[in-house]
Amino acid sequence: MSEFETLMDQINQFREERDWLQFHNPKDLALSLNLEAAELLENFQWKSSEEAIDTQLPEIKDELADVMVYALMFCSDLDIDPEQIIKAKLEKNQEKYPIEKAKGNKKKYHHL
Amino acid sequence: MSEFETLMDQINQFREERDWLQFHNPKDLALSLNLEAAELLENFQWKSSEEAIDTQLPEIKDELADVMVYALMFCSDLDIDPEQIIKAKLEKNQEKYPIEKAKGNKKKYHHL
Amino acid sequence: MSEFETLMDQINQFREERDWLQFHNPKDLALSLNLEAAELLENFQWKSSEEAIDTQLPEIKDELADVMVYALMFCSDLDIDPEQIIKAKLEKNQEKYPIEKAKGNKKKYHHL
Amino acid sequence: MSEFETLMDQINQFREERDWLQFHNPKDLALSLNLEAAELLENFQWKSSEEAIDTQLPEIKDELADVMVYALMFCSDLDIDPEQIIKAKLEKNQEKYPIEKAKGNKKKYHHL
Repeated sequence: MSEFETLMDQINQFREERDWLQFHNPKDLALSLNLEAAELLENFQWKSSEEAIDTQLPEIKDELADVMVYALMFCSDLDIDPEQIIKAKLEKNQEKYPIEKAKGNKKKYHHL
Repeated sequence: MSEFETLMDQINQFREERDWLQFHNPKDLALSLNLEAAELLENFQWKSSEEAIDTQLPEIKDELADVMVYALMFCSDLDIDPEQIIKAKLEKNQEKYPIEKAKGNKKKYHHL
Repeated sequence: MSEFETLMDQINQFREERDWLQFHNPKDLALSLNLEAAELLENFQWKSSEEAIDTQLPEIKDELADVMVYALMFCSDLDIDPEQIIKAKLEKNQEKYPIEKAKGNKKKYHHL
Repeated sequence: MSEFETLMDQINQFREERDWLQFHNPKDLALSLNLEAAELLENFQWKSSEEAIDTQLPEIKDELADVMVYALMFCSDLDIDPEQIIKAKLEKNQEKYPIEKAKGNKKKYHHL
């Protein structure tokens, strides 16, 4: 079993034990993922990257983990293979951002 | 090499080829993760879960992949092991949400 | 003095008394506005609109006020007239969403 | 009629002409407010405040206006007086952040 599958199994066991699958529709999972992303970002509010990392690394790790947990719940509930969609997106991005145009350039692809 | 490491290697190669690491400080990565989470959520705007899944599954997969790509960049840049922090957070959540109290209950842990 | 100006004056006095203007650069204000918007949204997590309104209206009002306070700080710091930009945007939207095409249609304007 | 009421009237006329009130439940309005806040923030991605203001002020104004338009729709639909909740929240914040403790201090109130 892959690492992703092992993690999704653990997460699903956690949800089943608490009978939480009844609340977990995809719209609320996407909404929740946004809330966790905001909690991650909150650690950087009024701070430079360095200041945030120096003072709040444990909180940052926790919130980043929460983001990934929701992403994996979402994958599990919709039968999405996380590894597969990440690889597919990286391939798309290779085309959207060709090296010769994108090198050292932070513009969005539609401005390249 | 684990699946996570393989993916992080591919993502880092993508960034290096484009000379993008210069832009990728943790604060802007956390900010970007929020933007991608919002793009995922946009697929559910004015829609039920079912309607969104029926009409926009390919876009949903792409945005979810983007969220995970930023999460993995963040891990890679801060030398964070994604599998380890997810497991550690699940253990914390076991304590925050004890089965007997949390079962069938959607309240936040501080309201349990 | 207009209502918006009166409110911005009160908000600025609040910030000045606390010596907080030193932290309030536009990037962190935009970031903070996102955090407050997420706190507003959190009141709807795992809930229907009705359930959220029934059980959390005071919290919803507080978070919505926070969103508007950050929007007004942002306007004040960049010398933006809130009333003027709202009116200008409504006019743009009139053109982006012509009545005959947009009526009863929730599609984004680039899909109309 | 107050400025806020005038703006809410214009916004409501815009929605009625397009028959959009059928889509505008509070949960989706809160969700949409988050999407607009993210679009505002996107103007600051990979940029300093100065760089963003220099290059994207018109886009920033448009997105900020969208945030305020959604906030006003939300108020209008729930019969909330925007001016009243902003003033009430400022008073609460006066108590949460007493001047003597909060001066020059960016910590959250529960850490003061």
